[in-house]
Amino acid sequence: MTEDVYEAIMEVARRRGILFPAFRIYGGARGFYDYGPLGAVLRRKIVDRWRWYYVHREGFMEVDSPTLGISAVYEASGHVDHFMDPMTQCKECGEFYRADHLIEEELGIDCEGKSLEELNELIEKHDIRCPECGGELTEVTEFNLMFSTNIGPKEGRTGYLRPETAQGIFIQFKDLYRLARQRLPFGVVQIGRAYRNEISPRQGVIRLREFTQMEAEVFFDPEEKEVPHFDRYADEELYFYPIEEQLKEDGEMYRMTVREAVEEGLVEQPIAYFLGLTKRFLTDLGIPDEAIRSRQHLPEERAHYARDCWDVEVKLERFGWVEVVGIADRTDYDLRKHSKHSGEDLRAFKELDEPKVVYRPKPKMNELGPRFKSDAPKVAEALREIEAEDPSELEGGLEVEVNGEKIEVPPECYEVVEEKVSGIRFYPHVIEPSYGLDRILYCVLEHNFDPEKGAFKFPAWLAPIEVCVFPLLKRDDMIDVARKIADELSEAGFIVEYDDSGSIGRRYARADEIGVPYCVTVDHDTLDDDTVTIRDRDTTEQVRVHLDDLEDALRRLLLGEANLEDVGEPFSPSQGS
Amino acid sequence: MTEDVYEAIMEVARRRGILFPAFRIYGGARGFYDYGPLGAVLRRKIVDRWRWYYVHREGFMEVDSPTLGISAVYEASGHVDHFMDPMTQCKECGEFYRADHLIEEELGIDCEGKSLEELNELIEKHDIRCPECGGELTEVTEFNLMFSTNIGPKEGRTGYLRPETAQGIFIQFKDLYRLARQRLPFGVVQIGRAYRNEISPRQGVIRLREFTQMEAEVFFDPEEKEVPHFDRYADEELYFYPIEEQLKEDGEMYRMTVREAVEEGLVEQPIAYFLGLTKRFLTDLGIPDEAIRSRQHLPEERAHYARDCWDVEVKLERFGWVEVVGIADRTDYDLRKHSKHSGEDLRAFKELDEPKVVYRPKPKMNELGPRFKSDAPKVAEALREIEAEDPSELEGGLEVEVNGEKIEVPPECYEVVEEKVSGIRFYPHVIEPSYGLDRILYCVLEHNFDPEKGAFKFPAWLAPIEVCVFPLLKRDDMIDVARKIADELSEAGFIVEYDDSGSIGRRYARADEIGVPYCVTVDHDTLDDDTVTIRDRDTTEQVRVHLDDLEDALRRLLLGEANLEDVGEPFSPSQGS
Repeated sequence: MTEDVYEAIMEVARRRGILFPAFRIYGGARGFYDYGPLGAVLRRKIVDRWRWYYVHREGFMEVDSPTLGISAVYEASGHVDHFMDPMTQCKECGEFYRADHLIEEELGIDCEGKSLEELNELIEKHDIRCPECGGELTEVTEFNLMFSTNIGPKEGRTGYLRPETAQGIFIQFKDLYRLARQRLPFGVVQIGRAYRNEISPRQGVIRLREFTQMEAEVFFDPEEKEVPHFDRYADEELYFYPIEEQLKEDGEMYRMTVREAVEEGLVEQPIAYFLGLTKRFLTDLGIPDEAIRSRQHLPEERAHYARDCWDVEVKLERFGWVEVVGIADRTDYDLRKHSKHSGEDLRAFKELDEPKVVYRPKPKMNELGPRFKSDAPKVAEALREIEAEDPSELEGGLEVEVNGEKIEVPPECYEVVEEKVSGIRFYPHVIEPSYGLDRILYCVLEHNFDPEKGAFKFPAWLAPIEVCVFPLLKRDDMIDVARKIADELSEAGFIVEYDDSGSIGRRYARADEIGVPYCVTVDHDTLDDDTVTIRDRDTTEQVRVHLDDLEDALRRLLLGEANLEDVGEPFSPSQGS
Repeated sequence: MTEDVYEAIMEVARRRGILFPAFRIYGGARGFYDYGPLGAVLRRKIVDRWRWYYVHREGFMEVDSPTLGISAVYEASGHVDHFMDPMTQCKECGEFYRADHLIEEELGIDCEGKSLEELNELIEKHDIRCPECGGELTEVTEFNLMFSTNIGPKEGRTGYLRPETAQGIFIQFKDLYRLARQRLPFGVVQIGRAYRNEISPRQGVIRLREFTQMEAEVFFDPEEKEVPHFDRYADEELYFYPIEEQLKEDGEMYRMTVREAVEEGLVEQPIAYFLGLTKRFLTDLGIPDEAIRSRQHLPEERAHYARDCWDVEVKLERFGWVEVVGIADRTDYDLRKHSKHSGEDLRAFKELDEPKVVYRPKPKMNELGPRFKSDAPKVAEALREIEAEDPSELEGGLEVEVNGEKIEVPPECYEVVEEKVSGIRFYPHVIEPSYGLDRILYCVLEHNFDPEKGAFKFPAWLAPIEVCVFPLLKRDDMIDVARKIADELSEAGFIVEYDDSGSIGRRYARADEIGVPYCVTVDHDTLDDDTVTIRDRDTTEQVRVHLDDLEDALRRLLLGEANLEDVGEPFSPSQGS
């Protein structure tokens, strides 16, 4: 075989209806894929498993907010200003490139976090040119990755397709905090589409312009930033790849438990917890332990909102280590920003053991107005946020920040007032485990693919077709019974395919190719005694089961509660495979 | 109560986390809603039920294609040209209006399908003005309802957010037909977001700019346009409201079975079948039979692609009869259009009982080129589609349509060739049942709401919280047991809420408000004998159940396989409610 595993998988995926390039009849469009019938089931099963971990087990709330948002949200979140990639264009052929990726490919160096100036210097110094036509490249500029549109008929009401599902949670914090009965920590998850207008996506299904995220935003009291139930995944062994090792010439991964990593100060407790959960989740999907590592972001890699971030990466044959999950400490960045931009107080409240007295500068608007003109309301707002335990801290003027500038407020502009408070208001900190469903799905395909056989061997519960039902021969009496069994199993909730075309051997082979764990065959005996055979994909062994027991047998097999020999009598076929 | 049911429901929905207005902290945006934790579960349960009907029972394939599409798709589908609403703007205050709706409100007449000229005449004749400020209105123009954006960094690569999920299926017809083993009829479903940039949505959750569709595209041989398994819903009794009755002064609905409606020629068989299925689906969700009707579209209402269409409407208190499902006969419109625009042959193939001889005009390019210049390839393509059983039909020149114009092709431009064919190629016809999930969800809320109690009474399986678990008293020993039960039930897949705040009576009331069908309470006896009480929402009766049997009892109760008295010993509480 000259083709690599990626090509082999995508060929089966296309032929059997897992993944299709989108818009193919119109020439296609990079960064867009369709999920065919089998792919859609796989997606759903991965989502359901994730939901079990986060909603059923962690007890987090799930929400579903619009994918299209008004601009105010993304101005506040920083995406309008910061969600950029460096872009360059060929002056000859007009092709666009993501500048840092192009330089990385040409020079084999890491360009993450380099400034526009640095990138331009590298292009000039090394005379990097268009890989397509050798043409000269334009100066590198920033390109915002959000898709923008106009909401309503009025020009200028910009909307953006969300670049992450997270913001839909942050802006509803007030209601969600109330629904969580104002107790921290609590988590909120969202599963849905997100969009990034990649400059030039070239990695097939790995870099999509439209993709699906499964995100959890977990809100903590910053003074108690610890996950309860830490023990749940504390003994999970992981490969950790922290910053210090990445910076070494021959850095190594550490193999240790989640608990050890926390105790040794390698990673903070909540991030470590979700790294452990993630490894468990990914291994459930048939991705082996040794193909999973937890890599800390280098400072220059971090998003504009993150204090710390660890990626969970999966090793792929063509693409190397690929990020499929990011677990970020977003601190109070988002809640603060949205509070500031919206004027809504998105803080949590904590009762003090006993009330205390604080002092505040109460703004005098008649003094502020003439001095600060149109900025006066903002100065007043900034003053209202100040609180001191000792009134002397408020004497002799205060400094506040307005529109990013420091402003001196003289003492005649406010009056110091005493206030008795029973609790304190504070911004919760957010830990965000964010999963890329499409990449995970591709990793599931690759790590469950047997390149020798050209076939998938999904864990039984995950298989996109759970049961195939065949008549041994294409005879009306067998066909009728087999169809009826297929219909009944399907109505009972199984994912079933009926197939009567070609020899029984070819049908088994077709089922094996897409990893169908169990095949049920109706044969001569079925017509006499209402028994059928169940064949196991991996051992190709068969047992005979009575129709009355079939549903229960298959359910136990798929849930891993029974082995084939537990559900029926051994059977050696005299014909067929 | 001065508020209507809509207000009452939306208040509970907001407070308890079913539906929130989106972007509220930034002033909101019309046509966008968030689903809170309970709303997200309701959505998912409705989707799962729909999927059972269409995927598990009908055996249709499910796919998932991008929501953002390249312009070629929507040029071919006709949406770029036809997906328009008439718009007018106030010259004074700048407010935009959907012209037909505004006139309908002002004059109380039906404007569906009226031309721009007719709408302008009505505005002028009746001096209709801005309802907000009384200002004059601009001339009515057409406004395209698709959200547009730019894909990639190159200007002019327009993309559209899909106005329906259907096109993602049509453009992949070739692969899907192959996966269906080239047998008709077969169906493909898609569940996902769709977008319409409504000019001025004013009906809350009923008219959204971003919404979720559940669509099925069912492909038929036009000569055998019949659903198999017709008997499945044939005896379902429905209210039919055909065109002829709508046109009468005092038209009435017909009450008859699906079978009778087909036999009397009221509606064609496949549409009737899906009307029956839909009624069954909606009544499963707790919407009563008498609030559901099947109304045929008047000719002027039909979309540009539809030959016939029936809406399933649900009666709502504030909005009257509202369309929640449309079942359209799209004929071969879409497959033909996409074949023509893409050059890909999206026809099905049918073997003939015996081969036959046909005659075709084989284009001579050297004659076509000089005559038709750049149109020559299109003329050739059109010629290749012609087929005749008698060669004389091809003599003396042919007429073809190119770019919408009829063109005469003289006989020297082609050669008549004989061909033996074993089958014929044809465009399948499409019947499309299309469901609006968000509207259905609102109908479910309204028809399961008891305005007296201000509480929901969902069917048990549909309830967004299935089980509440309470400790009778806020004592550590009871709390520990109750939490453990809640965690275990949740991990077993139930949707569970633990609550220990306030009196047990208040907790029951809170659970009743959102329709929790069963509440489990840990009391003094639990600590001794491992039994708990289960309380039924509707009867408020209770039984005692051993913890070992709890999971099974709840499962049977929720599936409707058992009544409360079947699962435990009757119990009368001595305290609490």
